[in-house]
Amino acid sequence: MTRATLTISSKNYSSWSLRGWLLCRMAGLDFVEAPVDVDDPDSRQELLLLSPSVLVPRLTHGEVTVWDTLAIGEYLAEIAPEAGLLPADRAVRAHCRAVSGEIHSGFYNLRSALPMNLKARHESFKIFSGARPDVERIKAIWTECLQMYGGPYLFGELSMADAMYAPVCTRFRTYAVDLEPALAAYCETIFAWPLMQEWTEGALAEPDEIIELEVEF
Amino acid sequence: MTRATLTISSKNYSSWSLRGWLLCRMAGLDFVEAPVDVDDPDSRQELLLLSPSVLVPRLTHGEVTVWDTLAIGEYLAEIAPEAGLLPADRAVRAHCRAVSGEIHSGFYNLRSALPMNLKARHESFKIFSGARPDVERIKAIWTECLQMYGGPYLFGELSMADAMYAPVCTRFRTYAVDLEPALAAYCETIFAWPLMQEWTEGALAEPDEIIELEVEF
Repeated sequence: MTRATLTISSKNYSSWSLRGWLLCRMAGLDFVEAPVDVDDPDSRQELLLLSPSVLVPRLTHGEVTVWDTLAIGEYLAEIAPEAGLLPADRAVRAHCRAVSGEIHSGFYNLRSALPMNLKARHESFKIFSGARPDVERIKAIWTECLQMYGGPYLFGELSMADAMYAPVCTRFRTYAVDLEPALAAYCETIFAWPLMQEWTEGALAEPDEIIELEVEF
Repeated sequence: MTRATLTISSKNYSSWSLRGWLLCRMAGLDFVEAPVDVDDPDSRQELLLLSPSVLVPRLTHGEVTVWDTLAIGEYLAEIAPEAGLLPADRAVRAHCRAVSGEIHSGFYNLRSALPMNLKARHESFKIFSGARPDVERIKAIWTECLQMYGGPYLFGELSMADAMYAPVCTRFRTYAVDLEPALAAYCETIFAWPLMQEWTEGALAEPDEIIELEVEF
């Protein structure tokens, strides 16, 4: 089979690119990264958080072309079951998919008010009131998972859910969101994850102002 | 195993409830419907399209509790593989998950500007400009699927994707969206689906003004 291709956009700004990339690496997939032109209108839509794009992340693997982060995750879980993207126990697997689905379909206010920006730090950031219930819900999800499965990752071992929430960890750091110790420790675990360090190095090496965020609140 | 329970809200307004219910019925699951109180704040958030809710749809089946529509679909595909919620061919299955993922995570403007309302018909509805690219993208998805797999459903036979897009068919009818003949025929196929007819009867029997939509554009 020919080597796979994963299309991504900015490593600093594109949270969906990060998720797709983490999933591919977790699955041990042999792939090359294909960056999209960030000036492409559809790609800009994604970066400006206006809509998910069918452009990124997008995986081409032999005869298979698959986009949408969860669909990529499910595809990888099928072809690399040994990677453990999904927990082995059926009930735990359903739980993992439920919380992964929540971040996939929801938290619109969080995503627009606290965009991923790995280079930035805002120490006294005022969180838009509409995003606060999203922050509280995410804290509740993490707390429940860490208590039920004992950490250090959401479902004990690394799973798809950690890839889905990894950009949220960076947002909580960027915008100085207060976290209880157990949740702060979870974020530190994610930051110490070698794949996250590798991605972050790529983000920090990107030219500044690759795109001006024009989000309105 | 005890009988499953599916928690749903308004049959007239809740597109996520419709999707979860269709998936459970397609899978042949033996379940009872548990309606949530539409005055519950979290449920109202969902009905007002402000955020997906962890309340609906929510499936309890033995020791498994699973929410989020895609997670429910994946769970059902595991326990009832013979129901064909996912296509048998791996590449087609990836495609089905990709377009199901798109409607799950995206089309925010469509969802807010054209809320599901099975009782309503608006013949000269002006579609908010922000929702038009969503409408065009959905037309493109349907056209590609119907051409690739030959219809009458998106992936030939009924699949998870039809449950995901069924509420969109009703929105296109409610707001009189112009459709090319092949796409109009797909919508008619969905309206003629006995499960859709059963759900719609339930919606039409609901008291009027179960909730006032307060969405702002």
